[in-house]
Amino acid sequence: MAHRIVTISREFGSGGRTIGRKTAEKLGIPCYDNELLEKIAEESGLAKEYIAERGEYTPRGGWLATAFADRSVNGLSVQDYLWTVQRRLILQIGESEDCVIVGRCADYILEEKADLLKVFIYAPMAARAERIVTLYGETSDSPEKRLRDKDKRRAAYYQFYTDMEWGKAQHYHIALDSARFGIDRCVDIISSLF
Amino acid sequence: MAHRIVTISREFGSGGRTIGRKTAEKLGIPCYDNELLEKIAEESGLAKEYIAERGEYTPRGGWLATAFADRSVNGLSVQDYLWTVQRRLILQIGESEDCVIVGRCADYILEEKADLLKVFIYAPMAARAERIVTLYGETSDSPEKRLRDKDKRRAAYYQFYTDMEWGKAQHYHIALDSARFGIDRCVDIISSLF
Repeated sequence: MAHRIVTISREFGSGGRTIGRKTAEKLGIPCYDNELLEKIAEESGLAKEYIAERGEYTPRGGWLATAFADRSVNGLSVQDYLWTVQRRLILQIGESEDCVIVGRCADYILEEKADLLKVFIYAPMAARAERIVTLYGETSDSPEKRLRDKDKRRAAYYQFYTDMEWGKAQHYHIALDSARFGIDRCVDIISSLF
Repeated sequence: MAHRIVTISREFGSGGRTIGRKTAEKLGIPCYDNELLEKIAEESGLAKEYIAERGEYTPRGGWLATAFADRSVNGLSVQDYLWTVQRRLILQIGESEDCVIVGRCADYILEEKADLLKVFIYAPMAARAERIVTLYGETSDSPEKRLRDKDKRRAAYYQFYTDMEWGKAQHYHIALDSARFGIDRCVDIISSLF
């Protein structure tokens, strides 16, 4: 039988990563977030920082142009090479265990391969701005601008590799406003559906 | 204190109306769906069938043209007159009691006026097509086409009167795929959040 997997897609600053980690703890299953980054780094030979940035976000300033300007690995742009490694690892994880996977288009990659619970976490701009200033130590200088930029690049990346619209409710089984319910309540709701 | 209200926005054929009714039953509060239609008919003098169709959907075949071609009531197009009556009644309801309201842009109309739990219910096309054929006795001839048409008109209506995008997760506190969880489970989740 296919393994049961919770995929967490999230807006930057919505607490989706924390919700993923806490849900995994509550369910007693692994959470792939930073762990996935490390696996991808090991497998690809690329730097973690590069993967963190490029494995979910299109680069700044004209992503199409930049993608084509990338140096190539085995005839693929680095961005596409990273995508194939990321995809292969996520498929391997999906075949081996129940788990939570945060981000990285896992919802799309595992769509036909696992028993998925696809979750989207978001929050109003003001709540996210407060969160990234307080928790991530971001400067309080225009956090909204930075959030909009992150959202835009994550959406562009998702659309480029999945041909679907990021953040549209209909792609997920459940979508939750983390500011309305709080982190722990979101964890409770998701765990109860697993 | 503001009354607590659950607004249910939903894709046609997703079972959102049934989820609204059952949630209200479970919480022991009124559900405004057909009841709201009757109130609007009484107040406006318009026929229920007209309100059912025009109070949530833009008319077929060029809604803008049709809207302007409408006969006027007190200097408003019938469509806009219906909107003002609908809006006034929903605001009255929001001031008078805890309740569930299905559709009719209640989430937007009550945004600042009540303690809202904004819910969006949707389901994959295949599940909705099966539902409208089985439950509503729709002909099985292209139910998908009819669903797409309904979705499009509901989205256009919502956007026209609220200037927001219908069905975008971020407008709601929670969005649920009713085909994945089933009607009763959706009712349980929503009731637990009230």
